[in-house]
Amino acid sequence: MKISPVKGTRDFYPPQMAVRNFIADGWKAASRRSGFEEFDGPIFEYLQMYQIKSGNEIVEQLFHLTDRGGRDLAIRPEITPTLARMVNQQINALPRPIKWFSIPRLCRAERPQKGRLREFFQWNIDIIGEESVLADAEVIFCSLDYLRSTGLLPKDVVAKISSRKLLAALLKNLGLAEDILPVLYPILDKKAKIPVEAFTEMLGKVITDSGIISTILKLMDLHNADEIAGLINLNDQAKAALAHLQDLFKTLGAMGVSEYCRFDMSIVRGLAYYTGMVFEVHDAVGDLRAVCGGGRYDNLLKDFGGPAMTAVGMGMGDCVLEILLRERGILKDDTLATKTLDYFIAVADATLADKAVVLAAGIRQAGFSCEFPYKVSALGKQLKQASAYKARKTIILGQEYTIANQLVVKDMAEGLQTAVDAAGFLATLTRI
Amino acid sequence: MKISPVKGTRDFYPPQMAVRNFIADGWKAASRRSGFEEFDGPIFEYLQMYQIKSGNEIVEQLFHLTDRGGRDLAIRPEITPTLARMVNQQINALPRPIKWFSIPRLCRAERPQKGRLREFFQWNIDIIGEESVLADAEVIFCSLDYLRSTGLLPKDVVAKISSRKLLAALLKNLGLAEDILPVLYPILDKKAKIPVEAFTEMLGKVITDSGIISTILKLMDLHNADEIAGLINLNDQAKAALAHLQDLFKTLGAMGVSEYCRFDMSIVRGLAYYTGMVFEVHDAVGDLRAVCGGGRYDNLLKDFGGPAMTAVGMGMGDCVLEILLRERGILKDDTLATKTLDYFIAVADATLADKAVVLAAGIRQAGFSCEFPYKVSALGKQLKQASAYKARKTIILGQEYTIANQLVVKDMAEGLQTAVDAAGFLATLTRI
Repeated sequence: MKISPVKGTRDFYPPQMAVRNFIADGWKAASRRSGFEEFDGPIFEYLQMYQIKSGNEIVEQLFHLTDRGGRDLAIRPEITPTLARMVNQQINALPRPIKWFSIPRLCRAERPQKGRLREFFQWNIDIIGEESVLADAEVIFCSLDYLRSTGLLPKDVVAKISSRKLLAALLKNLGLAEDILPVLYPILDKKAKIPVEAFTEMLGKVITDSGIISTILKLMDLHNADEIAGLINLNDQAKAALAHLQDLFKTLGAMGVSEYCRFDMSIVRGLAYYTGMVFEVHDAVGDLRAVCGGGRYDNLLKDFGGPAMTAVGMGMGDCVLEILLRERGILKDDTLATKTLDYFIAVADATLADKAVVLAAGIRQAGFSCEFPYKVSALGKQLKQASAYKARKTIILGQEYTIANQLVVKDMAEGLQTAVDAAGFLATLTRI
Repeated sequence: MKISPVKGTRDFYPPQMAVRNFIADGWKAASRRSGFEEFDGPIFEYLQMYQIKSGNEIVEQLFHLTDRGGRDLAIRPEITPTLARMVNQQINALPRPIKWFSIPRLCRAERPQKGRLREFFQWNIDIIGEESVLADAEVIFCSLDYLRSTGLLPKDVVAKISSRKLLAALLKNLGLAEDILPVLYPILDKKAKIPVEAFTEMLGKVITDSGIISTILKLMDLHNADEIAGLINLNDQAKAALAHLQDLFKTLGAMGVSEYCRFDMSIVRGLAYYTGMVFEVHDAVGDLRAVCGGGRYDNLLKDFGGPAMTAVGMGMGDCVLEILLRERGILKDDTLATKTLDYFIAVADATLADKAVVLAAGIRQAGFSCEFPYKVSALGKQLKQASAYKARKTIILGQEYTIANQLVVKDMAEGLQTAVDAAGFLATLTRI
């Protein structure tokens, strides 16, 4: 009987697990540096929960099932609905602002391709209950603080930032009706992903006036917010949204991440639920999917049966990030150890094998990692084993023990050997 | 629209997440102390994979689904089948013994009750390719090393150890046929869980000879391996299995965990797939389900299409463990911080609010955690906030800054305040 893994999923052998931990540990550290607290929800939720935020079309992107009690459930494709549900449940008990992070395992029934798998991990940070520009800035800063901590530079990644509020004001100023905006956003979001002809054609299906289309095309190419006024007269709403965006860039400057940030009106985000700042981080070359994306969403908690409450957040998946870290040489196959030992015990005299068991247990109980050979082989082979296990020190049990009750402790990096008294050894252990 | 979580699942708000991390961090540390490497597999696998090990009856305990491609999948109820699949896939590349651990999220469609949920986490350790008693001892030792590290003492938990090989030899010696043993094991496994009358009745359905039943009842109550010979003549197989078990107890003694270990013939484990040592750790009072259980299984890899390869392993779920840790006072609701900050910045003069943003970003970039107020409130309120966040130090931005460019740094534990030069502050930061 031969069994294979399901397509689009990953097996994490120890080397791959080390990479996953490297990424997740970095995410956790960056979250904690910025004061986010960790949360998580169940791996499955009621199917209808995902339909609230994303409509019926989400269902075919879900792994969904009916349980024995006839309940329609789905493996979570994202954590934000769970976040909204959980915050609503304890809305009166939670001190605000709520600053939470999570690293959920998520599943989507999509066709696997580069940077997109059916099962992946996604770092999420969200600030709920704080409407000031500081919260927008914190979310972008924390994302960039993580990327910077891995060694990625402004020449490697760029945070493209825009505002749904500004975009909405501008589009309405062009004469477009409020109700076509939700139809327009997913199209505008495709700007950077498809040829300009295809993009123009898609716009043409929603907008008949070619002058408006032409202005939108110019808007989408803007990287300097000051130039907007040259294209469209700014109404008060647009002016306010623009001032807010400029305030955001000023704050990001104060936070020392200006070099990573750029205004880009073509960042729209497909989902209807964003209401303010939107951003994506891309590799500077631009040949990968977005490394992360997010923005402000002010209606979600209410849509989930809670009070109206402003929120801003970000999600970063592990698949594109890992590709990028490898392309930039930050992650290499041999960079990460799958095992490091404080001590390896080599047995030079087979009659001392029992002593190795006693010693190893004592070292572990003292809080250190230790291994000993299950079968006593030649000393050279055991020392090779110790190196393979990346042992910091190897303890050799041999004639020094038999004659003088001494352990020979070899520092594997320096190669130095010292003999120490076996009886008092465990008591001398301190963090190495 | 009001949405609730699915029954039998858990929401991990930051306080619950801190407990989950406390448990998982302990598991990881114990695994690494004993030289295990971490692995993981996908959250779902082909449904038939679970039928190989556990038959068709497992299907109704699974959350299973059919994907858009018509594949029958199941959310994993355990990780051992994934382990067998993964090891088989790379059997020739993996150095042996393979010592792996994992902390998978698992789901079972069972009725939720005390210590048993539909979604849980389970620590798994396995040693593959090593048949010596040392591997059996390592698995039991590592489980106990973790439990001991939490503060649980021999008066709190006991590892009950037996041998399937010994049991099989004894039962055959009583005249029972080999082929009824797989039927008998799940019944014998119920011994400690049901009244003796019910147990005897269940035995009676498989065994007609009341003398044999009586001997089995006595066997099940044995806690001293030396007394077996008084009940049954030991054949060579039984003698060999008994000697192996006594060797195991000797090794556990050498490892310093004798006080936690006890021979107990009533430990059988329900699953057919165990072939040698079997063990469970129970709370000493005995009113909870098993804290963990495991044993040697020599046929699983072969059943999964690989070579014949000996293996021994253990699984420990988080639900019963958490109940036990709480009952023993090791886990208290207020023991674990959901957030600790290296620095909190308090703004005594609202005109300095911008400086707090710059300073916080600099502190974070230096690798420390830091928060600042989004809205400037009274200083006393901010200091209370700093205490709530468990900040180690609070930096006060006030007139000292305006007048002398100095930061007032308050050590929150000692209450001491010192003024430091703001210009050079970031350069002075070292791990606190």
